Amino acid sequence: MRTFNFSPGPATLPEAVLQRAANEMLDYNGTGVSVMEMSHRSPMYEEIHNAAVDGLKRLMNIPDNYKILFLHGGATSQFSMVPLNLGYNAKAAYAITGEFAKKSLDEAKKYTNAVVVSDSSAEKFAYVPEIANVPDDCAYLHITSNNTIFGTRYTQLPKTSVPIVSDASSWILSETCDMGDYAMMYAGAQKNIGMAGVTVVIIRDDLLERTVNPITPVMYNYALAAKNNSLYNTPTTYGVYLCKLVFDHLESIGGIAAQQKINEDKAALLYDAIDASPIFNGIAQKAHRSLMNVTFTSGDADTDARFCKLAAAEGMINLKGHRSAGGIRASIYNAMPVEGVRTLAQFVKEFQ
Amino acid sequence: MRTFNFSPGPATLPEAVLQRAANEMLDYNGTGVSVMEMSHRSPMYEEIHNAAVDGLKRLMNIPDNYKILFLHGGATSQFSMVPLNLGYNAKAAYAITGEFAKKSLDEAKKYTNAVVVSDSSAEKFAYVPEIANVPDDCAYLHITSNNTIFGTRYTQLPKTSVPIVSDASSWILSETCDMGDYAMMYAGAQKNIGMAGVTVVIIRDDLLERTVNPITPVMYNYALAAKNNSLYNTPTTYGVYLCKLVFDHLESIGGIAAQQKINEDKAALLYDAIDASPIFNGIAQKAHRSLMNVTFTSGDADTDARFCKLAAAEGMINLKGHRSAGGIRASIYNAMPVEGVRTLAQFVKEFQ
Repeated sequence: MRTFNFSPGPATLPEAVLQRAANEMLDYNGTGVSVMEMSHRSPMYEEIHNAAVDGLKRLMNIPDNYKILFLHGGATSQFSMVPLNLGYNAKAAYAITGEFAKKSLDEAKKYTNAVVVSDSSAEKFAYVPEIANVPDDCAYLHITSNNTIFGTRYTQLPKTSVPIVSDASSWILSETCDMGDYAMMYAGAQKNIGMAGVTVVIIRDDLLERTVNPITPVMYNYALAAKNNSLYNTPTTYGVYLCKLVFDHLESIGGIAAQQKINEDKAALLYDAIDASPIFNGIAQKAHRSLMNVTFTSGDADTDARFCKLAAAEGMINLKGHRSAGGIRASIYNAMPVEGVRTLAQFVKEFQ
Repeated sequence: MRTFNFSPGPATLPEAVLQRAANEMLDYNGTGVSVMEMSHRSPMYEEIHNAAVDGLKRLMNIPDNYKILFLHGGATSQFSMVPLNLGYNAKAAYAITGEFAKKSLDEAKKYTNAVVVSDSSAEKFAYVPEIANVPDDCAYLHITSNNTIFGTRYTQLPKTSVPIVSDASSWILSETCDMGDYAMMYAGAQKNIGMAGVTVVIIRDDLLERTVNPITPVMYNYALAAKNNSLYNTPTTYGVYLCKLVFDHLESIGGIAAQQKINEDKAALLYDAIDASPIFNGIAQKAHRSLMNVTFTSGDADTDARFCKLAAAEGMINLKGHRSAGGIRASIYNAMPVEGVRTLAQFVKEFQ
């Protein structure tokens, strides 16, 4: 019996994907080699790589004028790459809705004229403020679509003609969206896709034409990565393979729309239990509740800690909230089985 | 029967390591989760991470005044990180012994006053020239210990008081060395350690005190990575686990000294076959022959291509030389079984 792992990332993966990875570890598809032993220049790896690109394109219905990249370095590297590639000699807008948004702003200040257009830090990031005004001369607007730590998300995009760049690390593939609403989206794979060490970037072609800051390190250049189909150097080949397996799996269960329905049901199960509880309250404001990261608290640190400890004894692990938010956090990404959420919701109800 | 995979990287891995990874894929050591599902902040992952650090330290007998980092981005990212962290407002020396050395120089020129102290490009990198003179005021000397593409290696280090930084991607763990001779060593894991997506950096403490170029991206800062034990953001956790498995395996067979003996025997088998062949000649000069990448050619591109094709039909794959060197290249890293090299040597002898 596998543990129910509510880790915010690296996070639980579909059991069917892990089983397939295990089965293929010593011999991929009769090649006599493991995927992690394949030259990244070999036709056998390129087939996997391109299948991952095509799989994501189909799943998200990504238009032809976008490139899909598999890069190194995690979302934190994107905090630097976005302003280096898109904000040279320019102004850029940042929406501050959590710790990672703050980090992206800190990094942007090094490389562009960063302006803050919304900020919910005064309310401990319990909601996602409306972005009333984005200056037209901004090179882009950076938002964090889902805030992993505080358990909030955008339910509608700001109305602006400025190109929107989304950190979608804990949101990608959880709900349908129109990629045309975004100029770029990026996501560390270890939350809702695959394993840590791969960062997915989806970027519109016109952004690849911008003048890149000349101090940009060679591996931080989107246009160079796009020109080389993410193979300028050796990518995290095994991680790209895992992405492909997860994309295949998601397609097999009916794609993102089907997954979204499951996610809404899972989130409702848990939020309903929290709202009905005489002990616990949700941390995020209801209108901005995340489908992926459910945060709640008893208001008492000892009680929260006892809850996490007792849950772990019942096979539900990694429920402790982030140090900057406190409380309890259940990350219920795509791969968390309904059964895991049901078990946790029941545990919330019975906890005294 | 597994294929004999002579890929220059990603490269063959020990079968015992892959078997263990497959066995543990769905449930690591009774935890009920895969290593790739573990939070990087969890005690279960930290144990693996620290065991990887300690394992490398033991294997290479690394003194206490060095830090071992597991970073993102491949060796190509190090081409930028070295001058950004170690060469700010300074002069740095570069030895040009191959394509990757050239790339490291190109990147260094962006961030430091890079001077070339040796260069064998005029001889198509067939040897590793002596470095007669390194200016004393250089912040570091950058060398490529083994040249993957051309099949050459340093057999002795230059005599200099300038700190030596080695790109050891295709050399690390293949021969014993005194880490005290180096100020820093780095290696993409996908050649002689584990899977692509992890870069091992071994760096002396005093280098972490240097003034870092203020334009350095947050993920490119060695001191920050060291302070956070490579956990500033989520590392390639599964890749670090693979490193640990390979380190364990190497320790179990007697460490680097035992592996070096095997490597010398394997290389001798193949070079002897080449030297005895009426058809083939080695590409690298004998004095600088690599133990890891054996390059040879018939002098005729069609004959070389036919050799690679016939070898592949016999289960020996990825023997085609790099486009910039031509010919044939057999990468025989630690994990290549003696049987694979013996089979290839026999094939060289019988080829007509």
